[in-house]
Amino acid sequence: MAVKSKKIQARKTVHSKHIPSELRRDLVTGNWVVIARERAKRPNEFRSRPKEENVCLPDDPFSDPQAHGNAEPVNIYKDKKGDWTVQVIPNKYPAFEDEGQCGELRMLGPYEVMDGRGFHEIVISRSCEDYLARLPRAVAVDIIRAYADRYKALKSRECVKYIAIFENHGKEAGASLAHPHSQIIAIPIIPPDVARSLEGSRRFFETKGTCVHCAMIAFEQKDNVRVIFENKSVIAFCPFISRTAFEIHLFPKEHLACFEDFAPGLFPDLAEALQASLLMLDRTLKNPAYNFFLHTSPVAHDVDYAYYHWHVEILPKTAVWAGFELGTGIDISTIEPERAAMFLKAK
Amino acid sequence: MAVKSKKIQARKTVHSKHIPSELRRDLVTGNWVVIARERAKRPNEFRSRPKEENVCLPDDPFSDPQAHGNAEPVNIYKDKKGDWTVQVIPNKYPAFEDEGQCGELRMLGPYEVMDGRGFHEIVISRSCEDYLARLPRAVAVDIIRAYADRYKALKSRECVKYIAIFENHGKEAGASLAHPHSQIIAIPIIPPDVARSLEGSRRFFETKGTCVHCAMIAFEQKDNVRVIFENKSVIAFCPFISRTAFEIHLFPKEHLACFEDFAPGLFPDLAEALQASLLMLDRTLKNPAYNFFLHTSPVAHDVDYAYYHWHVEILPKTAVWAGFELGTGIDISTIEPERAAMFLKAK
Repeated sequence: MAVKSKKIQARKTVHSKHIPSELRRDLVTGNWVVIARERAKRPNEFRSRPKEENVCLPDDPFSDPQAHGNAEPVNIYKDKKGDWTVQVIPNKYPAFEDEGQCGELRMLGPYEVMDGRGFHEIVISRSCEDYLARLPRAVAVDIIRAYADRYKALKSRECVKYIAIFENHGKEAGASLAHPHSQIIAIPIIPPDVARSLEGSRRFFETKGTCVHCAMIAFEQKDNVRVIFENKSVIAFCPFISRTAFEIHLFPKEHLACFEDFAPGLFPDLAEALQASLLMLDRTLKNPAYNFFLHTSPVAHDVDYAYYHWHVEILPKTAVWAGFELGTGIDISTIEPERAAMFLKAK
Repeated sequence: MAVKSKKIQARKTVHSKHIPSELRRDLVTGNWVVIARERAKRPNEFRSRPKEENVCLPDDPFSDPQAHGNAEPVNIYKDKKGDWTVQVIPNKYPAFEDEGQCGELRMLGPYEVMDGRGFHEIVISRSCEDYLARLPRAVAVDIIRAYADRYKALKSRECVKYIAIFENHGKEAGASLAHPHSQIIAIPIIPPDVARSLEGSRRFFETKGTCVHCAMIAFEQKDNVRVIFENKSVIAFCPFISRTAFEIHLFPKEHLACFEDFAPGLFPDLAEALQASLLMLDRTLKNPAYNFFLHTSPVAHDVDYAYYHWHVEILPKTAVWAGFELGTGIDISTIEPERAAMFLKAK
């Protein structure tokens, strides 16, 4: 009963009168988002996925990747019985390819152009039915371990400047196969969004003398209305600057610039926080399509990115990026993150 | 026959051997895009829209907006018989609302926050079945006129810093109603994407002494493989830096910073170029969902944006923004704009 009345009270506080939409400015990038609240939406209004998604095909190519013409795994993880739980294979249709040498920057008219040299790998967990939210914890830890192992292996390759690690879950989020898998793409440039995030972090550090992400974490812990999960080393919350409804960010509590610096002993904590967050989305939005990705400092051969703080961003597909968002760069979320967090935490 | 052999030749030139993906850097924003070409895709692979989209409902609220509880039009356009062709109404569910005063910037913890004050209007053409590509030219000109008239009316409102004009066509592109309509949102900030575009244009102008968009237009005219339409005052091409497959940009040939400076006498030329471009998309991709938006200089009360060049960007929904794009800001197009232009021009 205590939980329920708290819930009702929270709703009343936020929605007792008409509140216009609110513009909120991202501390790191300087971007603005709109939190639109012309009426209090319920979670079922964000559920748009047909039930037939995530159906595993009889000829599912990832249940036995090598029997379906895929290369031998570059890394493989096994359980105590010796059966594989997670494997990493090169992508058959790579967006970036290794050609044994770096691409050179060249000019084409007024434009800079470069060959898409790099590495594109797929991280596969064995079961087709069990998506990440519902995998046994040990397998989720193997997935994190695969990310870390491949990160360490790829960062030493000559042309690699950044390693993107992400998962697309569900067709609406760009997954071409129902079998759960995530991707690792090592690229020869620092991505523009990461560059902007780095620049904003550096500027904040220089003016305030502290890490901007640490300041955000401290604000969320103090405000305590958007935090949805916390363990010894990881915190998860619906960020005050949410780009989409029910967005979740996960941060290591310790200030670490790079994912690579995250100690293997903490992988179970990250796996727990990631699974807890995805399970809340699963329960609240009924297995929504989502994307998650890591933001980490670039592969530093000579630069010090100590001011940065790596983290994970989960964006459920609760809306479409339309003309306003594409033409302005201003994202619209149609539920306040405070309210989204309340729904996610409700049992 | 001449056309056909030219087509085959073009295909051979581009695809006779394996070509890795190519990174291309945007001259204005500095962003990178990937042009992925692991295999030569055909237009039908970009057609993902079910046929039943764009079906007009019996209770279509925009065929007679006022009979469905909408406010009186703020502007209305009529044909020679006196029947309305286009009307502009306030949005019933505005993302930004007029409250008679500007929102003040305030701090919430470490964050800047502002009320979403502004104006949100809908531009409706009368027929539900005829979408913009297929409207009579005179009605398309009325739509451009409505944009321009509302731009002039809204720019003088105190809090307005930018006016976003855009259309979402099809559910996959975020349109909530099948009845064709575009939107005008006047907002109290300069959007981040426009700010970056302005900044890049200013930098180019200062270092090269010329408008970056004029340089892009000159490159496209000289290269002549991506231009799909041209009349006296407007040029349309698949940009060398395409963020999505079959993207199209339209530029006024004359250097004009602001949409507002585009003379009414040229509206028929813009309507012709816009309809020709949308009709090529319609024919090639079978009525695809798309977004288009104007990029124009902000509402300048005291700033000189003479280095900018207003334009229109059309992004058909040929793919989903997934984990890689969202985590890096690097967009992937799976067809070269050169090849997309060839398909668009083919009869």
